[in-house]
Amino acid sequence: MEKGRLLAASLGPGDPGLITRRAWDALHSGALWCYPVRRQGGASHALGIAKRAGLSTPGDAVELVFPMTHDAKVLARAWSRAAERLVPVLQEGRDVVFLVEGDASTFSTFTYLARFVKQRDAAIATEVIAGVPSFNAAAAHTGMPLAETDDTLAVVPAGYGLHELDTLLPHFDTLVLLKVKPLLDDLVEWLRARSLLASTVFVEKAGSPEERTVRDVASLKGSKVNYLSLMLVRNPNRLRGVMIRGCRQQPLTPGNGSQTK
Amino acid sequence: MEKGRLLAASLGPGDPGLITRRAWDALHSGALWCYPVRRQGGASHALGIAKRAGLSTPGDAVELVFPMTHDAKVLARAWSRAAERLVPVLQEGRDVVFLVEGDASTFSTFTYLARFVKQRDAAIATEVIAGVPSFNAAAAHTGMPLAETDDTLAVVPAGYGLHELDTLLPHFDTLVLLKVKPLLDDLVEWLRARSLLASTVFVEKAGSPEERTVRDVASLKGSKVNYLSLMLVRNPNRLRGVMIRGCRQQPLTPGNGSQTK
Repeated sequence: MEKGRLLAASLGPGDPGLITRRAWDALHSGALWCYPVRRQGGASHALGIAKRAGLSTPGDAVELVFPMTHDAKVLARAWSRAAERLVPVLQEGRDVVFLVEGDASTFSTFTYLARFVKQRDAAIATEVIAGVPSFNAAAAHTGMPLAETDDTLAVVPAGYGLHELDTLLPHFDTLVLLKVKPLLDDLVEWLRARSLLASTVFVEKAGSPEERTVRDVASLKGSKVNYLSLMLVRNPNRLRGVMIRGCRQQPLTPGNGSQTK
Repeated sequence: MEKGRLLAASLGPGDPGLITRRAWDALHSGALWCYPVRRQGGASHALGIAKRAGLSTPGDAVELVFPMTHDAKVLARAWSRAAERLVPVLQEGRDVVFLVEGDASTFSTFTYLARFVKQRDAAIATEVIAGVPSFNAAAAHTGMPLAETDDTLAVVPAGYGLHELDTLLPHFDTLVLLKVKPLLDDLVEWLRARSLLASTVFVEKAGSPEERTVRDVASLKGSKVNYLSLMLVRNPNRLRGVMIRGCRQQPLTPGNGSQTK
């Protein structure tokens, strides 16, 4: 008997209009739905997107509990339990579709789930349907490009600190700073000191119905923001090196071809 | 009379299944289609995606010629001509939908077009419908994550050179190297010297029907590849700093909170 496939249906950042046609088909394919929650009976962002698209949750849909923790043991147990629940369904030949917020390759839990399923049965095929990441939706809504011709782009959790950002800044035209909440006030001062306030936008819950965009980033100082908050920082001061284009004739040695300092 | 809106419909990297529902609606909305070509009568990647989705090109669709050049004057003239063609339509109240390959905020020409249209008539509203970037599709197809929990991600045209890549490498879990063609052989040696060949995938024409994935990157040495080629490099050697999480009580000074060196 042919085994079912484990599909990741990336549903985009929250706006049901940003579900792709392929993900839409996967939701309607008769595959068993499963979706992540933080705790039993809790809300699922991914399932919420499907609901806002007007779909009703199939009666046999499976809730998978992945606690919000960085404890590797607790997480491994959760992934293992999820795989244990899904593998028999897949082995019986039914497809399983895992509902993912955003894009399944970008800060998603799918990679872990797929690994644990493969560990139990290496013959089960997995497939990722790519989707729209939240920061692409944020850029679209603010009208700020993530990258123009020959630009460089970095996506960095802000929590690695301001010193790290200072190291990266000269090299990038755009910084997408994720999870800015714990450093918000310091980030505002960091941006001010580097004359970047005018080219920075703050976006809370990007792509969701509660999305909030703040262009006057300095006004956020001292305020409380949601955990799901990011900043798009355009850096007009990147020193551009000479690009190597087309078909080079000369061999390249490290040190050549980069003046982006 | 209400003016029409200029919409950017991001159609994803080439697979018509990756068109979002909102972009799909925009294509069917009665808006005037326009699409970029390199030269008059040339093929349009963006239009090709709509065609592969089974849509036929409306009789009044407008081809916009944007030559493949880095000459700022030639480009400005092309944008200006495109704006001149579209603004009267918008001023008469009809929406215009610009077909975009990939995501309109990510290495797209839309930002320029929108600027030139706004210059002619600041009252014309623009809207970007976010889409799936090509490197997200590449990651999906290779099964390689772009970013897992707390990862850092850089998207960099390879043409800035190997020295620049050496500077960035210690700071990133994933490097997406764009336009690798002119440096292909040198990149293979660069990857080999840093023990990164096994965690690198090469993808040509990501997301298109001709997509080609090569996992044995060393085998590419000396071969000819398409201009639209990228590499996904996972770096298992990034030194991880301590993340600042949750709500900090202590003020942060530059130098704290980052040990990612």
